[in-house]
Amino acid sequence: MGADQSFAGRGLSPDALGPTITIGEILVEIMAVERGKGFLEPIGLTGPYASGAPAIFIDQCARAGGSAGIVACVGDDDFGRMNIERLARDGVDVSAIAIDRDYPTGSAFVRYRADGSRDFVFNIGKSAAARLSLTPQARALIARAGHIHIMGTAFAIPVVADMLEEAVGVIRSRGGSVSVDPNMRKELLQHGQTAERFARAIAGADLLLPSGNELFLAAGVEGDETAAVEALFSRGVSEIAMKRGERGASVFRADGSRFDCAGFAVTETDPTGAGDCFGGAYVACRRLGMAPDEALEYANAAGARNVTAQGPMEGAGTIAELDAFIASTRRRT
Amino acid sequence: MGADQSFAGRGLSPDALGPTITIGEILVEIMAVERGKGFLEPIGLTGPYASGAPAIFIDQCARAGGSAGIVACVGDDDFGRMNIERLARDGVDVSAIAIDRDYPTGSAFVRYRADGSRDFVFNIGKSAAARLSLTPQARALIARAGHIHIMGTAFAIPVVADMLEEAVGVIRSRGGSVSVDPNMRKELLQHGQTAERFARAIAGADLLLPSGNELFLAAGVEGDETAAVEALFSRGVSEIAMKRGERGASVFRADGSRFDCAGFAVTETDPTGAGDCFGGAYVACRRLGMAPDEALEYANAAGARNVTAQGPMEGAGTIAELDAFIASTRRRT
Repeated sequence: MGADQSFAGRGLSPDALGPTITIGEILVEIMAVERGKGFLEPIGLTGPYASGAPAIFIDQCARAGGSAGIVACVGDDDFGRMNIERLARDGVDVSAIAIDRDYPTGSAFVRYRADGSRDFVFNIGKSAAARLSLTPQARALIARAGHIHIMGTAFAIPVVADMLEEAVGVIRSRGGSVSVDPNMRKELLQHGQTAERFARAIAGADLLLPSGNELFLAAGVEGDETAAVEALFSRGVSEIAMKRGERGASVFRADGSRFDCAGFAVTETDPTGAGDCFGGAYVACRRLGMAPDEALEYANAAGARNVTAQGPMEGAGTIAELDAFIASTRRRT
Repeated sequence: MGADQSFAGRGLSPDALGPTITIGEILVEIMAVERGKGFLEPIGLTGPYASGAPAIFIDQCARAGGSAGIVACVGDDDFGRMNIERLARDGVDVSAIAIDRDYPTGSAFVRYRADGSRDFVFNIGKSAAARLSLTPQARALIARAGHIHIMGTAFAIPVVADMLEEAVGVIRSRGGSVSVDPNMRKELLQHGQTAERFARAIAGADLLLPSGNELFLAAGVEGDETAAVEALFSRGVSEIAMKRGERGASVFRADGSRFDCAGFAVTETDPTGAGDCFGGAYVACRRLGMAPDEALEYANAAGARNVTAQGPMEGAGTIAELDAFIASTRRRT
């Protein structure tokens, strides 16, 4: 494995062009320590954990050695300060994180049910997370970015779709590239023009990072993986990194190549953030010049390592930590 | 001790005239289980607990057997449902608690510092708690109320001062009475007309329930308790129940009578809500016809009992529970 020179200029832009950026929600996550239904009685909790899918992605991207920045907004409170300090410590450019004086930092309370599904109490829409705008700092970061990662969850914030479209234009015009993680709730697609804009974002992506049924949702093709992949290639996507959870991951490329990676046999402590870490590591590694199979190995390890730690991004690892994880962790068979 | 007939009609109205009501914030409280500074790292927490000073007051009022209702607003989430179910179960009329579809239930994260002081991360101003209005259900509750309790904390919500003034007018016109707990942050008095409105509320109160320095803040007299009490009597207040924390409590009346009550020797688990429980029990007992000394005893017990339980209103007791507490708990000497 090694640098994939042929890819540069056609797919993801090299890291040297400028940082990978993302736009979206920064949250704190407060997690129940026991399983059960919802939050209707006092229970043991743990938190606040730095969270928000775009934040987790960009943290892992920076930890893996990629240059990284985020456009976001937090409240003027400890929860916002904790997030900013955490991202800055891990190497993320936090210059475009605005601090809103009126609204609190966004939050998500999460509790696992007995069957492993999750109950949430969210405050995003009426939090600082939704008070995003193209501040001078945000425009400056976008102007020097080399890649933008579009996180499907961010479409829940109405202003973000506009901001993403503007940023994609700026970044494309300077030779930058685009990735999309279509992790969006299906209900959101019903609202206004969200479905059209989402489809446009996907068609404009160099790299798509779907998980489970998201591949079919993104392709508009149900059930058949090969048909879905082909449909996306025909729309201009050049690379698809498919997350399969504990069953590993695959990369499909428009040139017909395919790479598969088995899952790691880890004890799951907290599955939150695994897909976002996968994405952050994959984009960072590819932009740093690694070939798809090598990037896939690190991404797969980053997702698996993250589920071993309590907290949405507490298991995000450096390349050295991921190497150690890969060397010491058994594969599922 | 027994019914204090002489008081009826001049001070607090009898319970039979209609429920004691209050207007203000309902919150969930999330509490750190370990001491430290703020919320800048993940720590053990416990919650959500039903909270909000007006809610604690009215819960204890109902638990003590008084008829009770609250005008408030919660979000359409588990935190709101928990609060409504809790208050309803304890006998509070919850018909005037509105459910806001857009904003989350208000919240307060609290952590004790090593020195016993507290760090908060609040979301009240941009929560459902601030979305109060005089709904038809609120007007209906006010129209049948016999007493209104004004909680100083509620002045932090801009619309509440207007609502309180209107409610006081309605309740006064039907022979009802007014109590005020001046537990307001001093900084709030700087905003606009808050100081004037607060002074007007105090001057219009039959019963005042100050704690510590609040007596002097309410009276505008510094340092001398007797002078402060006299200043308040001269403005029309007829009864002052003074909370002294672990040192017990006193009642001063405009007729010159005074009653003192020693504190209970309890192990403090969580001081939050003690003053609110004191107030809820005192108002309920007085309106049920008890003499000041008897009401003081129950109020004192209600505050002390509440600090033995984790959670802002988890120690609120019925009269039977307070009798048992009084019988089994040593006094401080």
